[in-house]
Amino acid sequence: MDMFMPRAYDRAITIFSPEGRLYQVEYALELVKRGAPIVGVASPEGIVLAANETPESELEDPEYFRKIYQLDDHLASAISGLSSDARVLIGQARVYSQSNKLLYDEPVDVEILARRLGDMSQAYTQHAGVRPFGVTMILAGVDANGPRVLTTDPSGAYRGFKAVAVGRKNDEANKLLEQKYMEGLSLEEAIKLAIEAVRIASDSELNEETIKVAIVPAETKVFKRLESEEIKGYLN
Amino acid sequence: MDMFMPRAYDRAITIFSPEGRLYQVEYALELVKRGAPIVGVASPEGIVLAANETPESELEDPEYFRKIYQLDDHLASAISGLSSDARVLIGQARVYSQSNKLLYDEPVDVEILARRLGDMSQAYTQHAGVRPFGVTMILAGVDANGPRVLTTDPSGAYRGFKAVAVGRKNDEANKLLEQKYMEGLSLEEAIKLAIEAVRIASDSELNEETIKVAIVPAETKVFKRLESEEIKGYLN
Amino acid sequence: MDMFMPRAYDRAITIFSPEGRLYQVEYALELVKRGAPIVGVASPEGIVLAANETPESELEDPEYFRKIYQLDDHLASAISGLSSDARVLIGQARVYSQSNKLLYDEPVDVEILARRLGDMSQAYTQHAGVRPFGVTMILAGVDANGPRVLTTDPSGAYRGFKAVAVGRKNDEANKLLEQKYMEGLSLEEAIKLAIEAVRIASDSELNEETIKVAIVPAETKVFKRLESEEIKGYLN
Amino acid sequence: MDMFMPRAYDRAITIFSPEGRLYQVEYALELVKRGAPIVGVASPEGIVLAANETPESELEDPEYFRKIYQLDDHLASAISGLSSDARVLIGQARVYSQSNKLLYDEPVDVEILARRLGDMSQAYTQHAGVRPFGVTMILAGVDANGPRVLTTDPSGAYRGFKAVAVGRKNDEANKLLEQKYMEGLSLEEAIKLAIEAVRIASDSELNEETIKVAIVPAETKVFKRLESEEIKGYLN
Amino acid sequence: MDMFMPRAYDRAITIFSPEGRLYQVEYALELVKRGAPIVGVASPEGIVLAANETPESELEDPEYFRKIYQLDDHLASAISGLSSDARVLIGQARVYSQSNKLLYDEPVDVEILARRLGDMSQAYTQHAGVRPFGVTMILAGVDANGPRVLTTDPSGAYRGFKAVAVGRKNDEANKLLEQKYMEGLSLEEAIKLAIEAVRIASDSELNEETIKVAIVPAETKVFKRLESEEIKGYLN
Amino acid sequence: MDMFMPRAYDRAITIFSPEGRLYQVEYALELVKRGAPIVGVASPEGIVLAANETPESELEDPEYFRKIYQLDDHLASAISGLSSDARVLIGQARVYSQSNKLLYDEPVDVEILARRLGDMSQAYTQHAGVRPFGVTMILAGVDANGPRVLTTDPSGAYRGFKAVAVGRKNDEANKLLEQKYMEGLSLEEAIKLAIEAVRIASDSELNEETIKVAIVPAETKVFKRLESEEIKGYLN
Amino acid sequence: MDMFMPRAYDRAITIFSPEGRLYQVEYALELVKRGAPIVGVASPEGIVLAANETPESELEDPEYFRKIYQLDDHLASAISGLSSDARVLIGQARVYSQSNKLLYDEPVDVEILARRLGDMSQAYTQHAGVRPFGVTMILAGVDANGPRVLTTDPSGAYRGFKAVAVGRKNDEANKLLEQKYMEGLSLEEAIKLAIEAVRIASDSELNEETIKVAIVPAETKVFKRLESEEIKGYLN
Repeated sequence: MDMFMPRAYDRAITIFSPEGRLYQVEYALELVKRGAPIVGVASPEGIVLAANETPESELEDPEYFRKIYQLDDHLASAISGLSSDARVLIGQARVYSQSNKLLYDEPVDVEILARRLGDMSQAYTQHAGVRPFGVTMILAGVDANGPRVLTTDPSGAYRGFKAVAVGRKNDEANKLLEQKYMEGLSLEEAIKLAIEAVRIASDSELNEETIKVAIVPAETKVFKRLESEEIKGYLN
Repeated sequence: MDMFMPRAYDRAITIFSPEGRLYQVEYALELVKRGAPIVGVASPEGIVLAANETPESELEDPEYFRKIYQLDDHLASAISGLSSDARVLIGQARVYSQSNKLLYDEPVDVEILARRLGDMSQAYTQHAGVRPFGVTMILAGVDANGPRVLTTDPSGAYRGFKAVAVGRKNDEANKLLEQKYMEGLSLEEAIKLAIEAVRIASDSELNEETIKVAIVPAETKVFKRLESEEIKGYLN
Repeated sequence: MDMFMPRAYDRAITIFSPEGRLYQVEYALELVKRGAPIVGVASPEGIVLAANETPESELEDPEYFRKIYQLDDHLASAISGLSSDARVLIGQARVYSQSNKLLYDEPVDVEILARRLGDMSQAYTQHAGVRPFGVTMILAGVDANGPRVLTTDPSGAYRGFKAVAVGRKNDEANKLLEQKYMEGLSLEEAIKLAIEAVRIASDSELNEETIKVAIVPAETKVFKRLESEEIKGYLN
Repeated sequence: MDMFMPRAYDRAITIFSPEGRLYQVEYALELVKRGAPIVGVASPEGIVLAANETPESELEDPEYFRKIYQLDDHLASAISGLSSDARVLIGQARVYSQSNKLLYDEPVDVEILARRLGDMSQAYTQHAGVRPFGVTMILAGVDANGPRVLTTDPSGAYRGFKAVAVGRKNDEANKLLEQKYMEGLSLEEAIKLAIEAVRIASDSELNEETIKVAIVPAETKVFKRLESEEIKGYLN
Repeated sequence: MDMFMPRAYDRAITIFSPEGRLYQVEYALELVKRGAPIVGVASPEGIVLAANETPESELEDPEYFRKIYQLDDHLASAISGLSSDARVLIGQARVYSQSNKLLYDEPVDVEILARRLGDMSQAYTQHAGVRPFGVTMILAGVDANGPRVLTTDPSGAYRGFKAVAVGRKNDEANKLLEQKYMEGLSLEEAIKLAIEAVRIASDSELNEETIKVAIVPAETKVFKRLESEEIKGYLN
Repeated sequence: MDMFMPRAYDRAITIFSPEGRLYQVEYALELVKRGAPIVGVASPEGIVLAANETPESELEDPEYFRKIYQLDDHLASAISGLSSDARVLIGQARVYSQSNKLLYDEPVDVEILARRLGDMSQAYTQHAGVRPFGVTMILAGVDANGPRVLTTDPSGAYRGFKAVAVGRKNDEANKLLEQKYMEGLSLEEAIKLAIEAVRIASDSELNEETIKVAIVPAETKVFKRLESEEIKGYLN
Repeated sequence: MDMFMPRAYDRAITIFSPEGRLYQVEYALELVKRGAPIVGVASPEGIVLAANETPESELEDPEYFRKIYQLDDHLASAISGLSSDARVLIGQARVYSQSNKLLYDEPVDVEILARRLGDMSQAYTQHAGVRPFGVTMILAGVDANGPRVLTTDPSGAYRGFKAVAVGRKNDEANKLLEQKYMEGLSLEEAIKLAIEAVRIASDSELNEETIKVAIVPAETKVFKRLESEEIKGYLN
């Protein structure tokens, strides 16, 4: 039946279906489910973000095919979904982090930033004339409360995790994370776990050029992208 | 027939159906009926809020999976439905409580706050270009009139209760409350009753980590979350 | 046929059907027909408002389940329909009464207030982007012209009555009023008649807790809610 | 076929149908055709307005069930259709008459007022976001040009008549007026004719309480409602 | 097929159909085709406007049933279509003529006025939220270029004619004009021709009360309505 | 299938169809294809515009049936499509040319003007609430770069030609132009070619009254309309 | 099924389909797939842009049929899709480059410009009342990071490439580029490769008049269009 008649509530901008679902939000989540595999892992020694950044073509310059973005010294984000939508939120996040630093003279709290991005996303689900953002972000950083990994999604909700996978085959990747995550794991172990989870969610073989890893160690609280050589070490 | 043709009145933003129902509001209530089980109980000795805060995944950080929010010293809220919608109303409630304190130098009356949130919610049901809020809140606190438990819902209506359950299986939980609620019950008895009602509405077994309880004793008029150890005591 | 095809004129915001009816207004009246039974009766000695305020649940606090609202010293309202919509009109009525007192140093005329609320309601039936108010109000008070009972409805029309019933089973209640209303009845007789009309319109047995009565005696011109004990006296 | 498929041009706000008709305006005229019977008659000695003001219920206060409104000393209106829509136009007419008196120090010309109300009504037929006014008015008065009877309708058109009937069964009433109207008839004859026309258009028997008559004699140019006793005289 | 399915492009405000037609404009022209018969004729000695002004009822006052309007001393208009729409354009035309006289101290050029009204009409065909004007006007006058007869229509186009008929049966009337119009005809001959064309387009017999004629002689350049007696002379 | 179901993408204001076409723009082009035949030809000695200006009726005044408009001393335009839409663009073009002369003290460049009109037209294809312009223009003039012939169309695109025909039967006329156009042709030859192309695209025989020709010689750079007598010379 | 029923989600302005796709964006990409073949190639010695600029008619002036636009001294763009949409973005790009030079006294970074155009394009995919831009651009230039080739598309995404083909038959052209592109190729080799890729994507034979090539050598960082003669050299 779905194939023959338009369902009226599909059409309007983000209204409730009879079952109380926000269709536009659910459709945006469908898009995210087909997005790039990204993973965030928290360890007492810091946080790890890993992503499959395999470009579609050999001639594509991987430098512009980023899935991991630095937001502030102590804070980064991995994205899955529409990269152009993500840029809007990343831009907001950077401005907000800077303002926070200027106003309070301290790095922004990761949860406060997640709430801010969530509030902005929520507004795009309640008002006509716009569509929800088609992106899920993993926000990860080390703030006054220690290493933190949170997600924000198209509905504007945010949640916190010890470890989480988003995008293609996230079911398999999350199952792996649940099986292998251990409280108190080291940063090295967290990196290994994150890479393993990205690999299980990827359709093709990955190497040190196509998988990207970034960390914020608890000690330095400074964002750092791993070099290809370092990543290669973890792949074996 | 429902399955083959769009029903025209489903589509428009919160208009009346031929039967005089506001469909968008009713659909939002459907969403709430599938929300987290939350319970509020009033005793002469104070109020109790209890909620099932079981995260969906083992790796989810329960700290960000809150259903109970402090709004002011003497006042708290439990929510069921869309958490991102709830945040908008919680933000409004906190601002309103603070303004009230500054203007009148006394804690906000619980009913006045409920009316305020209800008026805001009502506006989202009468004007085009927005959808109703997809959340029902239990507001509970101790004000000049003593301990109070109220609910606000997507239509903008608010009601008062001695004890009330919202969310999944609220029929069963409310039946339990009606059977067991006794006038003049102590705060301890109220806590026990609230926990029992949340348990009956939950699909899985709960423990001191997944059920959360907060109180505002009539004596102190100060919000307090129960520790896991305290909750454990009530579970047996 | 109604069941198979959307009727296009159902959909748009308050436009005329081919028969010259305003569907959204008629649908709102459907809602009122299922509302709480309320009654207003005028006597030379004052006015009476009575309402069935039976809450849906035993645990519901009847204090917040009001159908009768004081608008000014000499003036009150009973409502049937959406309580959240009614609050918007009640708020307007209170502000307007106060302004009138400040400007003219005399209590607002009941008809002038009815016209004011009617004009506001009418605007919600002629402009896109809003829906009509889903409530009918009985306005009753004692002004310079003596005791007055008027109604306003979702179309913005207002009418005056010696006695009137609104809400569930209003046909039966109005028939009773027509049969039993006598010119020159006393305030006591008016109270009895109002209570009898609410009872006939109610599905369940009523008692002094579930039926509410308020009066504005012509002598004092001051609003007064009857105590449970007083109501009990009229019930036998 | 009308019964099975929505006609697209029914839906939009006051657009042309393929036959060049403005449906919303025609639907509003349908409403007027079911409205209260009203009649206006011009005589060299003044103008007469008559209306059936039978309330729907015995308990309804006829004082608020008006169909004839004074607009200025020399000018009145009878309405048929939505009373709440009519109030908007009546309010405009009164303000405009007063402004005219202040600006030019003379009573407003009846045609100029009709054009003003027509222009306002026309705007509601050409712009989206509003619906036409659901009312036809008879404007009658005595100005510098003598006694005048005009009508304005939902399209914004206005026309002048020696005698005219609007509302329910206006076909029969207008036929009567055409048969019996005589040039140079006296005011008394005009009153009799107006009453007769209202009676023929009414479904039930009328008496001095349910038929209302107002006049503006050419001599005094001052609006005057006939007393029940006077009307009674004309009924026999 | 037209009868069974809505044609989507009928609905939207003045958009192109697949054949490149503006439906709303064409529908408005349908309305004009059923409008009152009006005729304009240019002679070297001046211009003539003639119109059938037969009211629908015997009791209707022909004074308010005008089809010919004076716009300025040297300039007049006949209208066919919606009289309330026409009034908007006539109002604009009068204001524009007066402004022109004040600014340039000379009577407005007929073409410049036609362009002005056309530009206003065009805007109502290109923007959403409004519908085209449902009227065609014949503008006729004597300006610096001599006697001129132009038409403006709902699309905003304007055209010039030696003689032209608009409204009901304009095909027959225009055929007559083409057959009988002679270059250099006198004003008297032009009046006769205009009256004959109105007659051929009218469904019923016309007399000096129901046909109206106005002229602007080239000599005086001053608008003048013919008296009934004068018209009577031309009818035989 | 086209005949039975509305195609949803026909309806909305200028959105993409699944094939990536802008339907409203394509429909506007359909309108142009049925427009008046116009031709522009560039010669080293100047530019030529020719148009079929046969009025629909014998009585129509060809003076107001223009297809060729002077925009500036050195610059002219021929139009095909909706004349009322064209007037809007012509008005813009004249204002822009004058501003350019005032600002830079030199005649506007033909391409710059085409881009300006194209940008304005483009905006009407990307924003809701308006429809595209239903007109194609040939812009021709002699500027600092010599004689130039360009076209602008409803999409906002502009193109340059040595010779081009637009409107009815433009396929045949353009084929003729391709066959007969010679580099370095004289202005006289260009005039002959333009007239021949208009004739082949016209349904009826043309004469010196119904075909219009205008030129801007490279020598004078001053717009000039050919007299009937001159045109007659080229017709034989 | 696609052929029989409108798909409701096709219609609304850029919303998500149930599969999480933005249809309007995908339809715009369809348009680009039928656009002119354009190619960008990066070499350590500079960048190359090549395009098929064959006009549709022999008489069309290729000067106005451009696919390659200079944006700044060091920066150019080739476009495929709607040329009128492209002009809007090109205008923005030029203004932005100039502002950047004024503000920072250095040529704009190619990626920063791509992000800017992408952000503007993204906004047109998330807000109602507009449609996405129907164009894909290749941006190529030499900035502080060396030679860069990027693309922006209707979704607002931008990507970087060593070599890329857009428009008609881009699959074949990109396959060729992947096969023949060699790291470290010279500018001459890059020109040859770009021309070969344009040729493979073109339906007809190309010559030095119909294929256009522009370069920005790394040495000069100055945009230069190749002369026909130079291109001819590369064609053999």
